[in-house]
Amino acid sequence: MDVVYLDYAATTPAAKEVIDTMIQYFAGVYGNPSSTHALGNEARQALEEARATIARYIGARRDEVFFTSGGSEANNTALKGIAFANRHRGEHIIVSSIEHHSILEACLFLEEQGFRVTYLPVDRHAWVSPNDVEKAITDKTILISVMHANNEVGTIEPITEIGRIAKEKEVYFHTDAVQTLGHIPVDVNDLSTDLLSASAHKLYGPKGVGLLYVRRGVKISPLIHGGDQEGDLRAGTENVAGIVGFAKAAEVAEREYDKEARELVRLREMLTDGLIGIGGVHLNGHPDYRLSGNVNVTIDGADGEDLLLDLRLEGICASNGSACNSVKTRPSHVLVAMGLSPTAARSSLRFTMGRQTRESDVENLLDVMPSVVTRCRRNYNPYI
Amino acid sequence: MDVVYLDYAATTPAAKEVIDTMIQYFAGVYGNPSSTHALGNEARQALEEARATIARYIGARRDEVFFTSGGSEANNTALKGIAFANRHRGEHIIVSSIEHHSILEACLFLEEQGFRVTYLPVDRHAWVSPNDVEKAITDKTILISVMHANNEVGTIEPITEIGRIAKEKEVYFHTDAVQTLGHIPVDVNDLSTDLLSASAHKLYGPKGVGLLYVRRGVKISPLIHGGDQEGDLRAGTENVAGIVGFAKAAEVAEREYDKEARELVRLREMLTDGLIGIGGVHLNGHPDYRLSGNVNVTIDGADGEDLLLDLRLEGICASNGSACNSVKTRPSHVLVAMGLSPTAARSSLRFTMGRQTRESDVENLLDVMPSVVTRCRRNYNPYI
Repeated sequence: MDVVYLDYAATTPAAKEVIDTMIQYFAGVYGNPSSTHALGNEARQALEEARATIARYIGARRDEVFFTSGGSEANNTALKGIAFANRHRGEHIIVSSIEHHSILEACLFLEEQGFRVTYLPVDRHAWVSPNDVEKAITDKTILISVMHANNEVGTIEPITEIGRIAKEKEVYFHTDAVQTLGHIPVDVNDLSTDLLSASAHKLYGPKGVGLLYVRRGVKISPLIHGGDQEGDLRAGTENVAGIVGFAKAAEVAEREYDKEARELVRLREMLTDGLIGIGGVHLNGHPDYRLSGNVNVTIDGADGEDLLLDLRLEGICASNGSACNSVKTRPSHVLVAMGLSPTAARSSLRFTMGRQTRESDVENLLDVMPSVVTRCRRNYNPYI
Repeated sequence: MDVVYLDYAATTPAAKEVIDTMIQYFAGVYGNPSSTHALGNEARQALEEARATIARYIGARRDEVFFTSGGSEANNTALKGIAFANRHRGEHIIVSSIEHHSILEACLFLEEQGFRVTYLPVDRHAWVSPNDVEKAITDKTILISVMHANNEVGTIEPITEIGRIAKEKEVYFHTDAVQTLGHIPVDVNDLSTDLLSASAHKLYGPKGVGLLYVRRGVKISPLIHGGDQEGDLRAGTENVAGIVGFAKAAEVAEREYDKEARELVRLREMLTDGLIGIGGVHLNGHPDYRLSGNVNVTIDGADGEDLLLDLRLEGICASNGSACNSVKTRPSHVLVAMGLSPTAARSSLRFTMGRQTRESDVENLLDVMPSVVTRCRRNYNPYI
């Protein structure tokens, strides 16, 4: 059975160009970039070229881009790094209540360490109000962190406005761009952001690589202490192959973006209309400000786990929220924050499309979906 | 000009088998291991098989092996994770003064957070005395961390004895095995260790992957908070390709170990004798308890940087300490802790040999070394 992959927000396959580029850095150019000899130098050169490529792509300077092992590490570094380095200025942090778990769990840790965190509400479209951000700022606020787009429902947040407010109030502003880099324009100046996280494997790069952008002059401490790699902000031998692959993925994304986004919007509308046509199906997330590949729906009177199981039997890979939290049985914190009941949240599915998605994939899904929904509605027991 | 690579302690080229294994996990088996669908399941299966392989290799149970982005992250997780999770029991930590910077810098951070750290001295062979460890333990001690073998001078530490003392005193014991895994036997039970760090790229695996072994029942908090990957200890989408490559590297090391170690000891003795034969050259590190591929020497009346520069011109890649600290101009903290003067420390070189090192490499080095030393001694100015 052919698999229909509709879980691109969880991860993407690495692009062929990315793999072809990485391959020579495992045993060919294998030096440690910190070594000062010939093999170290060629590795360092590859590393710095990759940094320049990524920096240009996000409108940053080279010395503002720090490579990490992924989005979660970047988010943890941003939150804890700002908190520990700026404690003397204040102990208050503002985040939205629909952030990724790597932000929210880092906040819980910081609360244990004596910091105070405000978790902002969102509206029914998962939209964070800049007005709410402004009202939450006190003279003890050192950091605001609001994601660029939500990973579950695809809502794109008003980052530019929030960034402007943060700048005006002289509070550091971080945005988690893990879901947006490579998919919608990400420019650190347009977004008025001081810090920005991204992850390579969400844009057809390898797993295990990410970045943290840190604007010059921002006071931040490392999460991983040790050697003086990455401008003293992130110790550890650099994952040269992965980083070079990340840069290549950014190049490919830059080239393909326009065409890809248009096609994905077309498929998204096709899928959304088809699902809603089943009846008792509601779109979650913002109707207009949303990622091109994201369709998140609540299917009345059916259980999400049950739906996923049936779809799996049909060879369809979808999700009921973020992959990072798939083992937990709690309803999605994002859907609940949007005002859905825990029951409605548990009746939701996420389909995310990407570079390899074709109209036939959407058709295959829409072909089986009515009978899957009927079957699952018959099985339904909200008290499971 | 052919390059003679004598910096295997800094990093190693990935083995062909490792690359061949990894390659299918970039775009073939690309699912997110946390996804519950078919593509997620096959990725999870590969991940768990890799975990089982590594666990068996170090004598651990599968649920005691946690993958990280490398040795520095593993060391930071061990130190900070134990510290923050056990603060109620005490705030005292014991480490040796020759640990890797990822241990020492993590300790400085913990001191800022109110912990107290004892830095144990070493003897002139860089050997940590178990007796000193025992005397340093107080009723507030929560963790002892002593490396399995030193990365600069190759001394193998009395980990089993220290582990026994820690166990007797009911203090957690961590060892940094980054330089030993794949090179000498590493068994968590033989070593009596509660936690152990390792890094794939030091044993012909990829950069950007490591592990932390944590014995069942040890109380530890995450360094990277977020999703529930890696038994809730390490958030972030797993670097499946890298982890699978790490496991393959361990398999190859297990198979090749005996033959490799014997040959390296032979080459090490040949190189050591040749260097000492130049005159005014002294071996650093333990004469007997030392890594098979490590030769660290002080060359009287010559500057290490100058020697390295000359060697580079001859196509020889060596090091004057750890790669992680190569940008800093301070003399090696390891050599200084061993009692060398800063001047003598600055007159030192590290040659580390590995799987691809041949007798001809050692001969090439020994051919050029006398004239390089003569030249550098002529140039020497200890006040640079």
